[in-house]
Amino acid sequence: MTYCVALKLDQGLVFLADTRTNAGVDTVSRVRKLFTWSVPGERAIALMTAGNLGMTQAVISELEEQIEHGDEGEENLLNAPSMLAAARLVGQTMYGVQQQYSAGLTARGEDPSATLILGGQRRGGVQRLFLIYSAGNFIEAWDDTPYFQIGEHKYGKPIIDRVISVDTDLQDGVLCALLSMDSTIRSNLTVGMPLDMAVLPTETFAFINHRRIERDDPAFLRLSEQWSRQLIEAFAVMRLDAL
Amino acid sequence: MTYCVALKLDQGLVFLADTRTNAGVDTVSRVRKLFTWSVPGERAIALMTAGNLGMTQAVISELEEQIEHGDEGEENLLNAPSMLAAARLVGQTMYGVQQQYSAGLTARGEDPSATLILGGQRRGGVQRLFLIYSAGNFIEAWDDTPYFQIGEHKYGKPIIDRVISVDTDLQDGVLCALLSMDSTIRSNLTVGMPLDMAVLPTETFAFINHRRIERDDPAFLRLSEQWSRQLIEAFAVMRLDAL
Repeated sequence: MTYCVALKLDQGLVFLADTRTNAGVDTVSRVRKLFTWSVPGERAIALMTAGNLGMTQAVISELEEQIEHGDEGEENLLNAPSMLAAARLVGQTMYGVQQQYSAGLTARGEDPSATLILGGQRRGGVQRLFLIYSAGNFIEAWDDTPYFQIGEHKYGKPIIDRVISVDTDLQDGVLCALLSMDSTIRSNLTVGMPLDMAVLPTETFAFINHRRIERDDPAFLRLSEQWSRQLIEAFAVMRLDAL
Repeated sequence: MTYCVALKLDQGLVFLADTRTNAGVDTVSRVRKLFTWSVPGERAIALMTAGNLGMTQAVISELEEQIEHGDEGEENLLNAPSMLAAARLVGQTMYGVQQQYSAGLTARGEDPSATLILGGQRRGGVQRLFLIYSAGNFIEAWDDTPYFQIGEHKYGKPIIDRVISVDTDLQDGVLCALLSMDSTIRSNLTVGMPLDMAVLPTETFAFINHRRIERDDPAFLRLSEQWSRQLIEAFAVMRLDAL
């Protein structure tokens, strides 16, 4: 499985993905699920993937192919005139890949479904965040619920529901995404380290903190241990009145 | 959907269930999912249900029928010679109900699957806790993982994973079960108040705190608000070192 979470805050976008993939418990390996494209100072786009790995990799390959070998004037992620156009392009690419492979997969009893989170900003436009489905259609994150999750999203949802609103500080957003991931990793073996992170402050068109967090990353380990202590201390001061 | 959680601690068993049922978002109602049987001083048994409502109600009805109208010498929950025998009986009852209805349901595109949590104690035996599947087979909770969850279990798992071990105090177990339920209710509309609770201290053969917690229960509301504050305070003191 997978867990990816993206936040769309007033101060910027946060993307965090795990890297565990498994086709059965004895075929566990690492795979990248966070992809970024940027034209410094002009646009920065991130895409995260969950679901059928063959399908999501086909989408990524197509998107790369469009950039590298597309015909003159053909749309791609680096020249799409808006983030909405980029979402439509990724949706169409997903639709094409599903048309090509899903009947064959379904006939073999495999699930071809996949979901993507796409977010970013182009100079002249605002930051936007989309959740793209297998059919190529998509929804957008608005201020009321400024986040999307794909994959094993349930374990890490309570902390986000309690902490995140659109005016949450960007640093706190990163922290909350990491704690949401930490809770998921503790409760579900199919989500695992290392993690890939990228942060895009508004109007900067360049990712910061774009890095891989390894299993033995001292800052992440400290964070995880500190949060465990905090939760246990928070629980310890709770008192149950006679119910 | 449903969320039920049971803990098997050294000091006793804790059972907690929500009561929300929905067949589509416009058919939302309340239904009991926690059932108990007891012979004071001799045995106390609790059963919680998740999954296809017709199937779980058929299981409960059959179990009641066995007690009320069973033939002389026929086994039922009140005379089963051990908790293992009780689990086998409930498993067989589930199997029979599935045999009777599941083909018809499946043919109509409905999911007949259901899961049950059964726990209790009979004088002369120890407390035992079982998770019973649609096929009538079951697993038992041991000290390494002294809890079972059925239904929408993921939202409320992280707090249990962090707090509960077999030597957790019974009062803390009740508290943790309630907080696990609170997190689930906040993150998932298909799990809702009121709640049904029952606690069975070891060697007592009688439930305590066996009650319904209504939506406006002041103690539960205080608990929920206090936990929210605690979590937000715990988050507020977290500091993110440079990753």
